[in-house]
Formats: sequence, C-alpha cells, structure tokens
Amino acid sequence: MVVLKAASPPVPSVNKINNGTIKPLITPSPSSFINLDQGDPEVFRSYWRKKSEECTVVINGEDLMSYLSDTSNVCWFMLPELREAIQRLHRVVGNASAGMDKHIVVGTGSTQLFQAALFALSPSDSPIPINVVAASPYYSEYKDEVEILRSGLYRWGGDAREYDKNEEYIEVVTAPNNPCGSIRRAVANCEGEGRVIHDLAYYWPQYTPITQQYDHDLMLFTFSKCTGHAGSRIGWAIVKDIEVARKMTRFIHMSSIGVSKESQTRVAKIIGVICDSYQEIGSSLDPDELFFEYSRRKLRERWEKLRAVVDKSNLFSLAKYSKAYCTFTNHTSESYPAFAWMKCKGSIEDCESYLRNLKVLVRGGKRFGVDQKYARVSLLSGDDVFNEFLTRISNATRNRE
Amino acid sequence: MVVLKAASPPVPSVNKINNGTIKPLITPSPSSFINLDQGDPEVFRSYWRKKSEECTVVINGEDLMSYLSDTSNVCWFMLPELREAIQRLHRVVGNASAGMDKHIVVGTGSTQLFQAALFALSPSDSPIPINVVAASPYYSEYKDEVEILRSGLYRWGGDAREYDKNEEYIEVVTAPNNPCGSIRRAVANCEGEGRVIHDLAYYWPQYTPITQQYDHDLMLFTFSKCTGHAGSRIGWAIVKDIEVARKMTRFIHMSSIGVSKESQTRVAKIIGVICDSYQEIGSSLDPDELFFEYSRRKLRERWEKLRAVVDKSNLFSLAKYSKAYCTFTNHTSESYPAFAWMKCKGSIEDCESYLRNLKVLVRGGKRFGVDQKYARVSLLSGDDVFNEFLTRISNATRNRE
Repeated sequence: MVVLKAASPPVPSVNKINNGTIKPLITPSPSSFINLDQGDPEVFRSYWRKKSEECTVVINGEDLMSYLSDTSNVCWFMLPELREAIQRLHRVVGNASAGMDKHIVVGTGSTQLFQAALFALSPSDSPIPINVVAASPYYSEYKDEVEILRSGLYRWGGDAREYDKNEEYIEVVTAPNNPCGSIRRAVANCEGEGRVIHDLAYYWPQYTPITQQYDHDLMLFTFSKCTGHAGSRIGWAIVKDIEVARKMTRFIHMSSIGVSKESQTRVAKIIGVICDSYQEIGSSLDPDELFFEYSRRKLRERWEKLRAVVDKSNLFSLAKYSKAYCTFTNHTSESYPAFAWMKCKGSIEDCESYLRNLKVLVRGGKRFGVDQKYARVSLLSGDDVFNEFLTRISNATRNRE
Repeated sequence: MVVLKAASPPVPSVNKINNGTIKPLITPSPSSFINLDQGDPEVFRSYWRKKSEECTVVINGEDLMSYLSDTSNVCWFMLPELREAIQRLHRVVGNASAGMDKHIVVGTGSTQLFQAALFALSPSDSPIPINVVAASPYYSEYKDEVEILRSGLYRWGGDAREYDKNEEYIEVVTAPNNPCGSIRRAVANCEGEGRVIHDLAYYWPQYTPITQQYDHDLMLFTFSKCTGHAGSRIGWAIVKDIEVARKMTRFIHMSSIGVSKESQTRVAKIIGVICDSYQEIGSSLDPDELFFEYSRRKLRERWEKLRAVVDKSNLFSLAKYSKAYCTFTNHTSESYPAFAWMKCKGSIEDCESYLRNLKVLVRGGKRFGVDQKYARVSLLSGDDVFNEFLTRISNATRNRE
C-alpha cells in the first residue's frame, strides 16, 4: 500500500508569489517557514553565477531532434560527448572506475536509474518478488520507490541488518549515506545470494574525502548532487555487466524512451568546464575558481558554524566524522555531508515536530527507518536560509535556558 | 513475463560510424538496411533548420538549477512558461481544451505520462490489478509498458473490443490511432466501470483534420510528434480532476523527481515561435513559413507518392481515410498519418519479413495485436530514406510481375 501523505508538493522557502513564478526567499522573515526538508542544492549557485558564461550552452532549432544518439552503444540514447565527459570527470576526481571496460547508462536523475537497476537485477523468472534491503537509517525515498507500483519483480525488504531470509536479495548501499553521512558497505548477512546497488550520489570531494576509486558492479551517480544542477535531471550508472546495462537501458526505453538531450548536452559542457579548470590550469588558480575547492569550503564553513551553535545548545547532538586522507586534494580532512543528521537531547522526543514549531521544515527519523528523535536537515539551501536556521536554533537554545 | 526480444536497440539508417558518432544516412545504398520501424521524426528537420536562430535557446551556468519550478501549481516541477505555452498552442490549434479549469502535468515524453496515468487511475485499495485494454491494432508499446514491472495495480487486459469482464478497467484510446491512423473512440462494452486515457499524440493538423476541440478527462500529448523534437522528451497531460493530476505528479516525482528544465524551457520557446507565426503575422506569410502548413504539405506529398507506388503494386494495400473539415485550416482534407499501415496481398503472409528481405525494417502486425499480413511503416524519416523505400517497393513490384 503506497502511502500518499508523502505526495504533498515540496514547500520552498518563499516570501511571495508573483505572476505564478516563485520568488526565492532572499531574506527570510522570522514568521516564514524555511524548508530544509528537500535537498535542493542552492548552496553552489554563486559559483555557477561566476562561471555563467563559460558554461553557456546554445541550442538551435534543429539541434538534438532524434530519439537516437549512438546506436553503437548499449545505451543508445546517451550522447557520446556526455559519456566522454563522465569518464573524464571520474578520471579527474578518482572516485570511481569508469574506463572503457565499463558501461555507462544515463538516466533522468539517479532516481530513474535506481528503478532501472531494480528491474535489471531482479530475476525475471521468479514466482516471488526479490527483497530490496538497505541498512537504516536509509534514504527515505527508496521504500516508496520500491513499493509504488506493487511490482511482482521486487518488494521492500526493510533494514539490511535484520534481513535473515534464505532468499535472493538486492541491497542498496548509499555511501556516503543519506541521511547520516557515514561511509557504508554492504551489511546484509544471510544465506541468500545478494546483489548490490551502490548509490554514490554524495561521493564527491566537497562532501567527503575521496579515499579510494570505487569499482563496484553497479554504481549510481547524479549531477544534482555533484554540481547542484538538480533541474537538469541527469544521473548515470557505471555498470560492469553488459547484460545488466542492457536491461537498464531497456527499462529507461520503456519508462521514457531515453533522456533529455538538452540536459545531456548541458551537463557535458559543465563537466568539461570543471575538468578543464583542474587539468589545464590546475592549482595555480585561486582555489575559489576550482569547483570542488569552492564547494568544500562552503560546506566546511557551514559545518563549523552549525557545530558551534549545536555545541552550545542543550537541544541537539550531531555525529562526528573521522578524518581521512583524500586522494583528490592530497590532504587529510573531515566529511562535510550535504545533510545534518540531528538528534534531539533529553525530553524532546520528536525532532521534526520540534523544529516545525520553530518553522523549520525537516524530515523526521521515521521516514529513514529509525527513531523520531532524529531528523535530517538539508545544508544545501541558500546562505540566508541557512543563517536563519542557525538563528532559530540559537534562539531556541536561549529560550530554553 | 516481459519478453525482452523488443529490447534490441533501435537500428538507425546508417552508412558508417565515425568516432562513436552516428553519421545519419544521407544517401542510402541499395545494400544498406533502412529503418522505418521507429517513428524517429526526421521529416520536419528542414523546417527547423530554416527557423534555427529564431528558436535558439541560451542557457547559462546558473540557470534552471532547482528541482522546483512553481510550488503553487499541482505539477510543481513544471516551468510556468511551459504551462502557458502549452495552453496557448492548444488555443491556436483548437485541438484540445486546456484552459485554466484544467491541470497540466509535464512528463519525460508521453511515455512517462502514460505510466503516471495508469498509476493515477488504478484503485489503490483493490486486491486485484485493474485491466488495461485498447482496441487492436493498438500501439505496440502499451502492452510492454503495462507489463514490464508486473504491477499489482494494473495488468494488460488485451483487445478492448473483446473485453467482457464485470470488473473495473482502463481503456486507452489513441486518436488518430497508431498504427492505422483511424480516429478512435472508447469501445469497451462491459458492465465494469471504465476510465479512459486519450492518447492524442497525433491529433495535430499535419496528420489529420482538427474536427473538434477535445475535452476528455485525461488527454496525453507529446512534443516529439507535434514538432519532431523527439530528443527533448517532453510530453504533457491535460487533466480535469485535480486528484488525478496530483497522483500523476506524485508518480513522476517518484519516477524521476521531475522533468528536465532545459527541455522545458526549449519547448516553451519553440511553441512560442509557432504561435507567434500564426498569431502575429497570420496567413499573409508564405505557407511554408507556417509549421503546420509546411508539415502537412510534406506528409501529403509523401502519401501521394506512396499511394501512387502502392496502387501500381500487386503487393500491398493501404487504408483509405475519409475527408473531413478542419477547423484549424478551414479546409476539407484527408488524413496524412505518421505511419502507413500496410497490408500484404495474396500469398505474402508476413509483411514484416517480406519487407526485411528488401532490407526495410518495419514493425509487424503481431506487435499491434493483429495479423502478420499487416505492418507499420514510418513515414517520418528523412527524404532520402523515404525515397529509397519507394524505390525498393517499386523494384519489388517489377520483379514480381
């Protein structure tokens, strides 16, 4: 049974609506709700404003008209320049092996690819659906995405740590994890044969040290979290087995006959600008000119401010992340996850409700399969929304003293 | 059970492959396969080449970054300018009622919207899946799209004319019909309650006379067939019931968290260029400057050439379409469908195989739920591919005499 309460449309942080167009919240007033529920990545926008022209794409009337892109490739709707850009980006960052021995499948965000992966990894001839498991706290949307159509191919199997059936299963490993930022590996421990989807949406240098080049069977990435271009809806899978890549492509064919070429061409362009800045000019540039340096600094500053406020507070606690050597930056550093996974202290039992009383919308622990003392707070908003959030929890701390 | 034989990637008409990039077939040699299986809409490209600059969109680095577009709208990921462009286009053409009392939901092509509609129209609390039916010959992909995930919400119920269960059902009505071009209405005749999806992908003036402004509960359109911009993957649904629109939006949220904004902004621009040419300058222009006049002339010429060749042939027959008054052109005219629905004559039992021997790839009748004496042939290819097709059936006619 699909619960539609999560169907409510996202609520932006807005002051007013003009002519049907949302005016983003510039200076939130103390009486307005601020939305830190979704992870809409506003935090990197100022970087892209500086790089505005360098990243410009121009698309003429007759461009990009065909369904087809490259029928010599398994993923026949993927533009060759996007495939090459993705391969280049992974070479530059060193976070995943995406060489010529791998198959890349583009999707309408990694959300579509997650479902394509479920389809591809599910046995087609089994009378019962395969169980899909993830260790809690798990990404809040996996369960709904698995259950929405009541598929006979797969079903939600709950927390991977508690899975003990003697049946085949698919485990989703999110690393770094959404919501809690920890580095994960497969944990399901049972006699059934497991297949693993590695969701690496946040395995980029601004969020976490790059400690190794992953080389898993099926890895998912999304441009939304890599650069903040969520509106483009571009994700990609790196797949070892050509039959899996073929089935994923088949799913996307059936689901949407391919993926927007306008988005594909723009993403290829922006990836090119990022890689050029590292490869052609390198570290002689002002670090703020380099995307991952800029974005890591932004997130580090936010985490430092947030920890200072939380440390003074008698209300919340935050996880600590151990330091690690990053092969991309050649420095040892902490993780600066995209979300704060906050736990209420003392008598506060429901973190989401507590923050809602402060007019801060966040996502409560229950959606992630854990206690409601926890809540996930997006750190990807615009500066003013983030600062208003700090002000509200500081004030709440004072009021409680 | 999903049959994966249809999973083979599309085969373009190609002469050679350079550096991973497909070089479109300009002059097909008699020994090369020509692909008239898919309906890749190359036929209108020369028009858009003429309008190249007028339709240009420029997208800068910081544009279109958010997941959100207009949270005051049910379809919160749809750009307001796209909604307005779609409403304007339907006012100009007069083919469907899309006023302010309707809800518009954008999708990654009408393929995604078809699945969103199945989700929205299926009872969420029924222990058995609802039957999805369509009158044969029906669009070859409906069955696979319904069956691919073995949903517990809906299942394929076969030919609408033969449906006689006393159960709720969803009927898909494709008008004009793909593959056969005929105008359809709902035909299922049983005691169960029916809900109807009207797939109006081809209800545009180049394909058929616009005889009325449709005002059905749920109507699907796709930009791919309207203008030929298939690579953009933009479709839209016009929906009367806000709860249905909300559930469709929920499905697209779960399926892909929205729809490419780059494609949305480009489609809004191109629709604006079409509407401007009709509204600001009107009929004083060279008819070839007006998109629907140009595209109807192209298809009319193809149909005239095809009928001339088929009439001389002892191999095939084609359906006749009755004339009708078109409220858009203010003239009485024939239909010029996007596909020819060809029937083999005499001893030829398998039209697809017969044409494959002529190195012409088409889609056989069985995929559409009917006899293999029929096959669907795309008339949307480039000029040279179309002319080569005529040459091959002319030669086959001569060889058989």
